[in-house]
Amino acid sequence: MCYDRRMEPRISLVTLGCRDTARARAFYEALGWTGTSPDGEVVFIQAGAMVLALWDRGLLAADTAVPDGGGWGGVTLAHNVATPEAVDAVLAAAASAGATIARPPAATEWGGYSGVFVDTEGHPWEVAHNPHWRLGPDGAVHLPPST
Amino acid sequence: MCYDRRMEPRISLVTLGCRDTARARAFYEALGWTGTSPDGEVVFIQAGAMVLALWDRGLLAADTAVPDGGGWGGVTLAHNVATPEAVDAVLAAAASAGATIARPPAATEWGGYSGVFVDTEGHPWEVAHNPHWRLGPDGAVHLPPST
Repeated sequence: MCYDRRMEPRISLVTLGCRDTARARAFYEALGWTGTSPDGEVVFIQAGAMVLALWDRGLLAADTAVPDGGGWGGVTLAHNVATPEAVDAVLAAAASAGATIARPPAATEWGGYSGVFVDTEGHPWEVAHNPHWRLGPDGAVHLPPST
Repeated sequence: MCYDRRMEPRISLVTLGCRDTARARAFYEALGWTGTSPDGEVVFIQAGAMVLALWDRGLLAADTAVPDGGGWGGVTLAHNVATPEAVDAVLAAAASAGATIARPPAATEWGGYSGVFVDTEGHPWEVAHNPHWRLGPDGAVHLPPST
């Protein structure tokens, strides 16, 4: 495509800064995710059409050229599933792997069902069932045609 | 699939907390992204198989049930492109739309080429050409078979 004043609407990689990258890798691998590390330092996990990376938080801040606020910084990930029961199951799996449950699963005001876990490095994930969005067999989420 | 102690390796949604959601929407729309808002508050943008959401940072923090550190919180997004020239072009487009260039584009120690912009709400994106990863025609990134 022509990149003149444009950027394709996609995210290739989400990198999570970690206090302990090995601990973070163990957490995600306990959930069934497969990490590889080309240099023994950064860990890459194929996640559908994109990649989740785990890397030392100080090195990530330096590489990103931003000061580290030290806490949560306004980014929340979400993992959508097909049923409310799957929300409960994923949150239980995350807790079993070492996550903290920040918000127990419950019906939401927007007609769905969700809860939040925080991974071992402080990064939150909402686990949600959203009946208004189509969830493909490959896990892709699709906004309704007109919202 | 059976969710017992498992979580499918995928990210459905990345929500960016915004000081000014309308300003953030205008920024991403200037880059060619298409936002929709079912409630006039949260903005959803289809980004390949996932969704980027823009939402008031205070409401997001409350919904996530985490305290807000106030700055960057250890999450950096990346947008991979096919050539070094496309890195330059996307960074220029982002700057033109109102982003700050945190790290000018340059060759990286891992053999690629990248730079970083920070959006109007303080969220950084690395724009990268990584010759070691396969970038599909649909924008999907694929890790090499063995890293």
